[in-house]
Amino acid sequence: MKEFTLDDRLANDSVSVTITGLCDVRLMKDRRWPWLVLIPRRPDKSEVFELTPLDRILLTFETDKVASVLKTVTGATKINVGALGNIVRQLHVHVIARFEGDANWPGPVWGYGKAEPYSDEDMNSLIAKLRETLSQ
Amino acid sequence: MKEFTLDDRLANDSVSVTITGLCDVRLMKDRRWPWLVLIPRRPDKSEVFELTPLDRILLTFETDKVASVLKTVTGATKINVGALGNIVRQLHVHVIARFEGDANWPGPVWGYGKAEPYSDEDMNSLIAKLRETLSQ
Repeated sequence: MKEFTLDDRLANDSVSVTITGLCDVRLMKDRRWPWLVLIPRRPDKSEVFELTPLDRILLTFETDKVASVLKTVTGATKINVGALGNIVRQLHVHVIARFEGDANWPGPVWGYGKAEPYSDEDMNSLIAKLRETLSQ
Repeated sequence: MKEFTLDDRLANDSVSVTITGLCDVRLMKDRRWPWLVLIPRRPDKSEVFELTPLDRILLTFETDKVASVLKTVTGATKINVGALGNIVRQLHVHVIARFEGDANWPGPVWGYGKAEPYSDEDMNSLIAKLRETLSQ
């Protein structure tokens, strides 16, 4: 079986939060929106429907858990979930906390402007909160 | 139990393709991209994680089936799947066929430009193909 390796662009643009049953869960290095990405640890998949039925169920429950936790931790108005992959073809699912008046609200986040880095303190604090709430 | 009614904006912007176990499946009236929307027939839901576990599994398999059929029927380069709901709060999942060089490629479709209507002939032909392939 081919080994799973994380896409270079995903690796560069995000930082690890946790590993779930199926996925690497990572935080995007962009403080404009609290933005997580789940990457199923399965090589050579681009579309959700290419996963096995069991993996699709795992991905659903892991995505829903991450989305629910992100809403709890941030108090977001709305969670946006998306699997696009037009640029990075390795299968990945975005989970983004949106707030009225945030950057490009109510439009989508993808392709909008430039990433703004977190301070180390803010990023570490957010990751700690996410890990704690994900483990509950 | 409260009755399910389709959001006015979704009803206006799309046309019915089929009804699955959980969802209304509708085609957006926008010929720039072959674009389907699944609306779970559950009242008062905005987030996928608010559905029951069984409904979440149904939504996953129905979304994956629709995505796979849309890829087969259109020959798309990539399928985009998203649940945003920043404007229309009734829970709905977008499934969009994307092609290199299409409108706003590789950016997202949401909020980009203005919808361009299909001719009646083109819309009916696409719906017929989708229904036939969905029933297989």
